[in-house]
Amino acid sequence: MAEKKLGKQTVKFEKCPYIIGAAAVGGKKEGEGPLKSWFDMILEDDMFGEKTWEKAESKMLKEAMQTALQKSGKDKKDIDLVLSGDLLNQIMSSSFMARDLHLPFLGLYGACSTMTESLLLGSMLTDGGFAHNIIVGASSHFCTAERQFRMPVEHGNQRPPSAQWTATAAGAMIVSEQRADLDRVGTADGFLGVALHKNVTVDCGTIGKVIDAGIRDANQMGAAMAPAAVDTILNHLEDTGRSIEYYDLVLTGDLGYIGKDIAADLLMDAGLDREGIKQRYDDCGTMLYYREEQDVHGGGSGCGCSACVFSGNILKRMQRGELDRVLLVSTGAMLSTISPFQGESIPGIAHAVSLSVC
Amino acid sequence: MAEKKLGKQTVKFEKCPYIIGAAAVGGKKEGEGPLKSWFDMILEDDMFGEKTWEKAESKMLKEAMQTALQKSGKDKKDIDLVLSGDLLNQIMSSSFMARDLHLPFLGLYGACSTMTESLLLGSMLTDGGFAHNIIVGASSHFCTAERQFRMPVEHGNQRPPSAQWTATAAGAMIVSEQRADLDRVGTADGFLGVALHKNVTVDCGTIGKVIDAGIRDANQMGAAMAPAAVDTILNHLEDTGRSIEYYDLVLTGDLGYIGKDIAADLLMDAGLDREGIKQRYDDCGTMLYYREEQDVHGGGSGCGCSACVFSGNILKRMQRGELDRVLLVSTGAMLSTISPFQGESIPGIAHAVSLSVC
Repeated sequence: MAEKKLGKQTVKFEKCPYIIGAAAVGGKKEGEGPLKSWFDMILEDDMFGEKTWEKAESKMLKEAMQTALQKSGKDKKDIDLVLSGDLLNQIMSSSFMARDLHLPFLGLYGACSTMTESLLLGSMLTDGGFAHNIIVGASSHFCTAERQFRMPVEHGNQRPPSAQWTATAAGAMIVSEQRADLDRVGTADGFLGVALHKNVTVDCGTIGKVIDAGIRDANQMGAAMAPAAVDTILNHLEDTGRSIEYYDLVLTGDLGYIGKDIAADLLMDAGLDREGIKQRYDDCGTMLYYREEQDVHGGGSGCGCSACVFSGNILKRMQRGELDRVLLVSTGAMLSTISPFQGESIPGIAHAVSLSVC
Repeated sequence: MAEKKLGKQTVKFEKCPYIIGAAAVGGKKEGEGPLKSWFDMILEDDMFGEKTWEKAESKMLKEAMQTALQKSGKDKKDIDLVLSGDLLNQIMSSSFMARDLHLPFLGLYGACSTMTESLLLGSMLTDGGFAHNIIVGASSHFCTAERQFRMPVEHGNQRPPSAQWTATAAGAMIVSEQRADLDRVGTADGFLGVALHKNVTVDCGTIGKVIDAGIRDANQMGAAMAPAAVDTILNHLEDTGRSIEYYDLVLTGDLGYIGKDIAADLLMDAGLDREGIKQRYDDCGTMLYYREEQDVHGGGSGCGCSACVFSGNILKRMQRGELDRVLLVSTGAMLSTISPFQGESIPGIAHAVSLSVC
């Protein structure tokens, strides 16, 4: 068997698992942003017909997974495993989604890095021959996260300019050992009016370390996570021998406006070309909302942020042939609801997944 | 490549990943129980020299991982990945352990099923060729769990007889593509006075589904988890074509006294032989404490329960040649701290790992 490890932190895939279906669900606010035409479903109301926000988030994740499954042309019986997580205590959204789907399930917690954690694990398990088809996904909800991590929503607490807005969104993908049936993908996304005629595979990925830069302000999540994102990107480039110019797009998860600038600065400090970074580096947290009109302060965040931006927008742009090679680097802040009260700073983590059309 | 899937939920391993090192750390109470001579370390005080219980739990998990690493004869630089989880919100113990170890990390949440979730994933990733050596583990702490899930510890709340006692314990193992250096294992565990001369491998495992039997009483965790354990065991036997007599020991995670009886009844209802079950089925939650003297009511629970019982006791008994084939089935209750208030019942999950000497 060929070596599947590259360098210290990177794994590469022999069979290049395919992404054969994907879906993004967005909340009301997300559906009014610049990516509104890319969602598979936009909630009219963020309660989604449920009695609690947590149940709404769980339903949103289930909806994204079921839509992705439908678009893949596969049947529930073809699915070997579901891998997902969310921000809620005891990953409540994922646990109850998994109860309802009634499929083998492994729960993950990587804070907002969960989309790439699930995609990377799903790719390894598929490539390793342990599954034919895996559903991967992640979700977040503004109201569930706000009340768990910050203040009661009804309190109407004033937010500092650096605070980020937790996306009400879910994204899911079907990772498969077999190529997508492209006629079906083209039909299912017909609403975009453009055929999706490229297959997308995962060719390698880099597992991140928990990096603590000593940030203690829970309203500075971008700053807390940026060093982890940069550490993972630099390790990825070193392990693979690639330059940043190899990619059409390098996309961090949810660093937001401040974190994105910090990450770009840190990448330049590490010797990467300024123009190269400027031309191909972006952050999902800066793409999901209109910065001024939607009053999101530091930009978007939450597991659902990179999950919906990638599953909804970037993947389809790859399938349409606009982007050939993308490095998705979801970023998570591994703080707990009590760790700051115990004097701990906020560690970050980021996992990178390299995707390409074929 | 040979088929690595067996039936619906089971994966089998070509290279049979080896467990080349393991360690169990127990709290003060656990160190006074029937397994006291099997722990690698027993805390004199459950604060473990830290200022908070959460920090003590994190340190205990790190201690278990470092001891397992030392006993394996491997170096930190040989480790490709750490897989772990715990019961705390945002898996605080694991996140801060991973920050300190500074190794690639994937966080898991499977409630008390986390030991087999991490062991099963670690075995798949090693067998799949994505890692040479992986540290897997899980932890729990009575005081962190009690105050998060139930009542402030200082409150001295009266516990109903069915309530289980969350173990203050951690267990960790090194999963490797290579056999253990048996001379080293023998030396490191010399305190038992018996040579450990058998290699232990993971030959297959079964990924569980989230099963909800409708239990709503958070003091009846064993009853809530037993149906998931039985579902996984039955699926495992069906997928592998094995009978329960194939195993010397089938060991559930932390069903406790009540849950163990329910699981045994459900297995008999499913047609399994009563004597077969009686002779070879046990539960970690019934093994960790003296039932009467230690006042643990329903028995032990928590991620650390099956983690320390397996890593400390069962694995060494396999290495000594007393047990040849063991099915470890850690069990988790996927309730959240708020889901019962939203009218939800308590779903359970269980993952099974089949281990054998070679």
